[in-house]
Amino acid sequence: MILRVDLLQTELPPPSDPDPVGASAVQELLGGKFGEMSTFMNYTYQSFNFRNRQGARPFYDLVASIAAEEFGHIELVSTAINTMLTGSAEEDPAPNAGLTDIVDTRNTQQFIAGGASTLVQDSMGKPWSGDYVNATGDLIGDLTHNFFLETGARNNKLKVYEMVEHPAARALTGYLLVRGGVHQVAYARALENLTGVDMKKLFPSPRIPTDKIPECKPHIERGEHLKLYRFSPDDFQELSAVFNGMHPETGEKLKVAEEAHPEGAPAFDLPPQPAVFAPGPEPEEIEEIAAKLRDAADLPKHPTGLVAND
Amino acid sequence: MILRVDLLQTELPPPSDPDPVGASAVQELLGGKFGEMSTFMNYTYQSFNFRNRQGARPFYDLVASIAAEEFGHIELVSTAINTMLTGSAEEDPAPNAGLTDIVDTRNTQQFIAGGASTLVQDSMGKPWSGDYVNATGDLIGDLTHNFFLETGARNNKLKVYEMVEHPAARALTGYLLVRGGVHQVAYARALENLTGVDMKKLFPSPRIPTDKIPECKPHIERGEHLKLYRFSPDDFQELSAVFNGMHPETGEKLKVAEEAHPEGAPAFDLPPQPAVFAPGPEPEEIEEIAAKLRDAADLPKHPTGLVAND
Amino acid sequence: MILRVDLLQTELPPPSDPDPVGASAVQELLGGKFGEMSTFMNYTYQSFNFRNRQGARPFYDLVASIAAEEFGHIELVSTAINTMLTGSAEEDPAPNAGLTDIVDTRNTQQFIAGGASTLVQDSMGKPWSGDYVNATGDLIGDLTHNFFLETGARNNKLKVYEMVEHPAARALTGYLLVRGGVHQVAYARALENLTGVDMKKLFPSPRIPTDKIPECKPHIERGEHLKLYRFSPDDFQELSAVFNGMHPETGEKLKVAEEAHPEGAPAFDLPPQPAVFAPGPEPEEIEEIAAKLRDAADLPKHPTGLVAND
Amino acid sequence: MILRVDLLQTELPPPSDPDPVGASAVQELLGGKFGEMSTFMNYTYQSFNFRNRQGARPFYDLVASIAAEEFGHIELVSTAINTMLTGSAEEDPAPNAGLTDIVDTRNTQQFIAGGASTLVQDSMGKPWSGDYVNATGDLIGDLTHNFFLETGARNNKLKVYEMVEHPAARALTGYLLVRGGVHQVAYARALENLTGVDMKKLFPSPRIPTDKIPECKPHIERGEHLKLYRFSPDDFQELSAVFNGMHPETGEKLKVAEEAHPEGAPAFDLPPQPAVFAPGPEPEEIEEIAAKLRDAADLPKHPTGLVAND
Amino acid sequence: MILRVDLLQTELPPPSDPDPVGASAVQELLGGKFGEMSTFMNYTYQSFNFRNRQGARPFYDLVASIAAEEFGHIELVSTAINTMLTGSAEEDPAPNAGLTDIVDTRNTQQFIAGGASTLVQDSMGKPWSGDYVNATGDLIGDLTHNFFLETGARNNKLKVYEMVEHPAARALTGYLLVRGGVHQVAYARALENLTGVDMKKLFPSPRIPTDKIPECKPHIERGEHLKLYRFSPDDFQELSAVFNGMHPETGEKLKVAEEAHPEGAPAFDLPPQPAVFAPGPEPEEIEEIAAKLRDAADLPKHPTGLVAND
Amino acid sequence: MILRVDLLQTELPPPSDPDPVGASAVQELLGGKFGEMSTFMNYTYQSFNFRNRQGARPFYDLVASIAAEEFGHIELVSTAINTMLTGSAEEDPAPNAGLTDIVDTRNTQQFIAGGASTLVQDSMGKPWSGDYVNATGDLIGDLTHNFFLETGARNNKLKVYEMVEHPAARALTGYLLVRGGVHQVAYARALENLTGVDMKKLFPSPRIPTDKIPECKPHIERGEHLKLYRFSPDDFQELSAVFNGMHPETGEKLKVAEEAHPEGAPAFDLPPQPAVFAPGPEPEEIEEIAAKLRDAADLPKHPTGLVAND
Repeated sequence: MILRVDLLQTELPPPSDPDPVGASAVQELLGGKFGEMSTFMNYTYQSFNFRNRQGARPFYDLVASIAAEEFGHIELVSTAINTMLTGSAEEDPAPNAGLTDIVDTRNTQQFIAGGASTLVQDSMGKPWSGDYVNATGDLIGDLTHNFFLETGARNNKLKVYEMVEHPAARALTGYLLVRGGVHQVAYARALENLTGVDMKKLFPSPRIPTDKIPECKPHIERGEHLKLYRFSPDDFQELSAVFNGMHPETGEKLKVAEEAHPEGAPAFDLPPQPAVFAPGPEPEEIEEIAAKLRDAADLPKHPTGLVAND
Repeated sequence: MILRVDLLQTELPPPSDPDPVGASAVQELLGGKFGEMSTFMNYTYQSFNFRNRQGARPFYDLVASIAAEEFGHIELVSTAINTMLTGSAEEDPAPNAGLTDIVDTRNTQQFIAGGASTLVQDSMGKPWSGDYVNATGDLIGDLTHNFFLETGARNNKLKVYEMVEHPAARALTGYLLVRGGVHQVAYARALENLTGVDMKKLFPSPRIPTDKIPECKPHIERGEHLKLYRFSPDDFQELSAVFNGMHPETGEKLKVAEEAHPEGAPAFDLPPQPAVFAPGPEPEEIEEIAAKLRDAADLPKHPTGLVAND
Repeated sequence: MILRVDLLQTELPPPSDPDPVGASAVQELLGGKFGEMSTFMNYTYQSFNFRNRQGARPFYDLVASIAAEEFGHIELVSTAINTMLTGSAEEDPAPNAGLTDIVDTRNTQQFIAGGASTLVQDSMGKPWSGDYVNATGDLIGDLTHNFFLETGARNNKLKVYEMVEHPAARALTGYLLVRGGVHQVAYARALENLTGVDMKKLFPSPRIPTDKIPECKPHIERGEHLKLYRFSPDDFQELSAVFNGMHPETGEKLKVAEEAHPEGAPAFDLPPQPAVFAPGPEPEEIEEIAAKLRDAADLPKHPTGLVAND
Repeated sequence: MILRVDLLQTELPPPSDPDPVGASAVQELLGGKFGEMSTFMNYTYQSFNFRNRQGARPFYDLVASIAAEEFGHIELVSTAINTMLTGSAEEDPAPNAGLTDIVDTRNTQQFIAGGASTLVQDSMGKPWSGDYVNATGDLIGDLTHNFFLETGARNNKLKVYEMVEHPAARALTGYLLVRGGVHQVAYARALENLTGVDMKKLFPSPRIPTDKIPECKPHIERGEHLKLYRFSPDDFQELSAVFNGMHPETGEKLKVAEEAHPEGAPAFDLPPQPAVFAPGPEPEEIEEIAAKLRDAADLPKHPTGLVAND
Repeated sequence: MILRVDLLQTELPPPSDPDPVGASAVQELLGGKFGEMSTFMNYTYQSFNFRNRQGARPFYDLVASIAAEEFGHIELVSTAINTMLTGSAEEDPAPNAGLTDIVDTRNTQQFIAGGASTLVQDSMGKPWSGDYVNATGDLIGDLTHNFFLETGARNNKLKVYEMVEHPAARALTGYLLVRGGVHQVAYARALENLTGVDMKKLFPSPRIPTDKIPECKPHIERGEHLKLYRFSPDDFQELSAVFNGMHPETGEKLKVAEEAHPEGAPAFDLPPQPAVFAPGPEPEEIEEIAAKLRDAADLPKHPTGLVAND
Repeated sequence: MILRVDLLQTELPPPSDPDPVGASAVQELLGGKFGEMSTFMNYTYQSFNFRNRQGARPFYDLVASIAAEEFGHIELVSTAINTMLTGSAEEDPAPNAGLTDIVDTRNTQQFIAGGASTLVQDSMGKPWSGDYVNATGDLIGDLTHNFFLETGARNNKLKVYEMVEHPAARALTGYLLVRGGVHQVAYARALENLTGVDMKKLFPSPRIPTDKIPECKPHIERGEHLKLYRFSPDDFQELSAVFNGMHPETGEKLKVAEEAHPEGAPAFDLPPQPAVFAPGPEPEEIEEIAAKLRDAADLPKHPTGLVAND
């Protein structure tokens, strides 16, 4: 089971100029074959289906804890998309014609099926599919797959970086490149520890060093490219048996973080978009009802949740 | 972000007689339109995409914390399926013909694509699709959807209960019926608190009271049909503003649990199935390597993970 | 727009021995690429999208009225499937285990997603897709397609005839072979009248004369293999301009029926199946409520609907 | 079975400025998860699969007759799309380059696979799927679903209204909002009559009253927001037992129409588009052939069909 | 089995102005229902599945050799698309923002999933599906299908011709129209020889003579509209038994080519596109490595491959 | 372009006891994610989309020639499936009920959509999808993918080997394991030569040496596990620059074959199956027509094609 910590794994910028076309491209990192839904779900099901996990404990712990980190990644991509869509459709709802400006956007469903928000789709509007999950139970096979998956994911993150300049997209890809890079290393190290193969020379793949990307640098400076977190209050204690040795690109020492998870940052509370009824055509009514309900439940006057723009 | 607690939300029985055909039917509860992937992903994306969450905090907290519980449900369904498949294919691998007995099973991919394990598919082998997610951002609309989704999910759990008698399937459906029932109530209460509608008379839907199911009773006796958990170390403090009042079927008082999550139980460490290479054609080799790696990393002799059959 | 006449186009037998496996095969005639959903939807959208329909009136009338007949075909296939499924699952609902006997049926969703009833799928459980519709607007192209589609449909009906011996399946395929045969002729005649091509020698295709099938004979004796109906109170008066000449197999004269539609027959009112909650786990409750509502609305004591087993 | 009446359920404007991008968005109302194909097919299959229909006659009649109305809705959406596409591609066919202007339209297949015409797809080009049909046979479950489906459909109609200002799209959404609203009420009333629940406070959902939309007003003035039609020459006589009481928004009395169907209006006969071969690259040839065939069949000189621009 | 001849079946122009939007439309001819993947795979599987091939040898030879030609067509369409995409993204890779200009292209995956290159998709980004293959084994049925398929393919080629003016697209469609036309004739002749039907009057379909297209003329002048090739060193000797008689449009004599395949032309060696890492972010490194490897293997200094721009 | 050589790459046994259920499982090796359609299409499109192929010639030659070999693999899998299905349905066609015995087979469409023959689907009846193709253009990325793909393919072949004992399935998997193994080595060697990585220790993956499989031995004895063929009359001369060194499992020297392709063997001419109309309900009629056509074309009395059972 899981516990949610209502923080993003890293800070993302607040809404600025809306960029719905850019947001349609960022969807590839969410629901594409190599998007974060795929990494999240692959490692999650590999951990569920792991046989003889005691006998292969360090490998189980590795897969299970990286799975947990990936939830934070679908959260980050969604937040970036929602940030980029904010302001595209904030006008009054029907009978106002508040969506005419975006009729020619690439992903109309972000507004019709969504509320100026993320869909579980790729950049062409194709839904993510359970078929993207590869959980054969064969440990060497699954680690080989995971290394390949992270390589494909890194490729896609670099491409989206080049394609979309919106600050939220850049902050997103900068962070994901660093953390996905750690996972690519982790699966290579697991394979190396398991079979004796030496995969160092495949790094970086694609052949662009992470530290060349300006948006990656702050994270590298904080050492985020070297650390694996357990993402658990008490479990997954055996990461160090497989996540160890040197970073294949930088030669620095890989390490398991002492803290269970990155410090994180509260999300920006994105404003209502009445034209898409999010959270309703008249958001203030919902706010009033919520206030009354909170009052009746003896909750503090100010909402207890943590948001960046409180 | 999330933290994983490496426990199941409830105890499931250890492997007994394998039941691959039954396991193919249980897949509906995992990857079907009304399966747990759908509930997990619907509420997760609704929480990511929630606009003005401070202004509607109790509703955000409700959706976000139920989402977290649903991760535990995909874990439970997967564990039940894996348990039912254990023993179908435990013989030696090729050149042995260890899978001939199951060539006519309903879901061959549980053995070819999986390692006698869960796939992200429904009972007909159709992959789960991101298209099953409904996150419009319109709070009333999404809550209406969620009530309907839980009603459909309850229908399918009851049908799978009737169809599959394997102890793991029965333990699974018994628990899911109770907890899914709480979510059905929760979304009804949220709608009621938000709009004033009174949905009590729609319960139970389908028209079979939960307490008629023997496998539900132990959970009902522990009050699991009345409680919502926060599933967070510190967040989602405002559930009581919307999850309150009486249970529509029993008239008992609904309550928010004091503990963050159910106590849970360690999973049974499912044995290797060499014929499907899980975790490899020669599992003992992996075990030896893992032991050496653990030793080199100064980990205790006995694996640190918690499993039911330690 | 349409009006419904609550009759089947031909009589189907009442439920007898249930045949869920056979019913899973009959689905091909409903939701398969060459099933009745495809014929219905192809001609329907071709009629909606028909440009310059006044200038090509007889062709428009032909396509539009055959489309209307096809609705009756999806109704017939569904009724046959539902008839074959009746009795597979009529026991008490949960906690009874009334579905264990069919856990290994080919299409579990007929019971889990349906109520021992038809799904919009083919014989492998793949949903019908809008992609099966070909409505290019090019009249010659669409007629060529329709002739091909009816040829494929005839192939599939003959195969299902050979595969499933249940009386409902046989009555169904017997009727559909005769009426689909008329449509195959109709599109050939339309192409011939439009271009001068002579397609007679392609009949029968596949090379099995319809009158060899015993279940087709009663319909042939009534002349159903020669007639096209308008399926409209007043419209589609110009069929005779394209549906004319001789039947390519028998040499008999094709004709437009004077009556708007076949006489038809009331459907058998299929009994409840409580184990799948159809129409609910306790069907008699629904019946009582309906009786009260009918009484309150001053409706006659006996239901006004026409069913075969009244 | 059905009879077609070759009239639209309401009048739509003739072609004006083409709007292919807008037409790509309107596709959501045809082939989207909440589009008219979904409402049409859901209610149609629910009626086919209805068990014990005599015992629950008023509910059967309700579902079956609303299904019939929905055919008219797929016809209306298609007609609106075709109207909006008219003129985008009316030039001479190849070797002319008559489609270069629309190479960057959102839905190229409306021109390549279609003849400047409707496809059975949503606004992202994803085909409608039989998977969108929910016909469980559980009456309460299906009515709950139908209420939810109409709520989602209303959401999408409002969004498309905001997004597309073309007169055909506006006339379309204005009418569909009124009639879909009646269905939303009808399913709520059916649930209320069946279970005793009171769903009034959920209206309007989304929270925009229908009478705020100018294009809805003429229909409201004619009382179209209060009436259910039987859509049958003789059947479905028991609607009044479940469709009764007050309109939840306006408090006016709901009623079953005396006439079987709305008066309707002839469709505009959309002009040929030679560049997409609709009905052919040289439409006048087809017209001449048709004239000869009509003459040979002793049909009147003037085509018998009814069109708006005769 | 097959042998590859590393030549295109016809010459295509070198890259000129990039046209990514046009390239997204040309995808329809590759991965669309009527694209070259469909013709290639239909005939290939029909040949694999052909029963009693000795007894029906000329028909087997026909289908098998046309299948072989179609491989050359998927190669040509891909080459045209790649040519059109060349130059859209040739800048330096990340951290450069070399893809911002194409963020609003219709098919983002040509750049994110591909390397400015072809995908196995249609013009809406929907992947080609094995469901498009029709290989019933019924010879008359399959030939009827193939005639229809080529008719649909010809329709789509003409539409793409009208839609995209890029020289590569025009050279492509000009050639494909001529060769696809031969296949349309071939299947008609096969049907005629097998059944006696006379399909001449269905030509041309759509009703635009091929020789009206300027880009077709050079190929017609070389007689490419009359010839079928065996596409085999030694096999498929019996084409003349079914591919014979007159061309239905021109009245010229059809003939089997003496040479096994068209002379063909080397492809243009498309330049690297570093921004999409094709063949890598630093292409010159790969070139150096390849040079060393070639040297070590005693290969000639100059690469042995044949390209247009050597 | 390609030339077909009408021989199988290896001999397969003639039909024996039919095994339709086994044949449904073998479909995974044809249309599954890791089936031969995937290997064929991945390498084919990677070769089409290869940029700067002169500069990276040996790599281009490797991918292009392996692609050509894979066509032979889809042919082999199809032939094995067709062989296994032969005899399941050889009775007289309708009105005979010749398919009742197989109504409960796992893949009904092999008989309804096919003629007791292969479909482009996996073992669950899901069509192969263009989405399975990964052709990023990034050479290192694509080679990493290809190594992973061959690893997954080897896993699936071993599993199908264990699952299906029919002689055709065993002969098939024996051969494919050997040749797929060569491709796995080839991509590893390409990666090694390109980056310096040493992947030897990943072999064998899965951890079952190929020479343990009895059906592999004859091929190993002929050295088929060491050789790469050019599969071209004249092209792809530079394989030796990347396919070189030692076999990672056996230490033997890898080599490029002198002959262009394996000797191969003629296919068995599979007998008609009238019940599924393959090649028609009355196959002898087709045979007579073909004989007349051959005679008219001055072809030799005896068919010229090469088949195993001539």
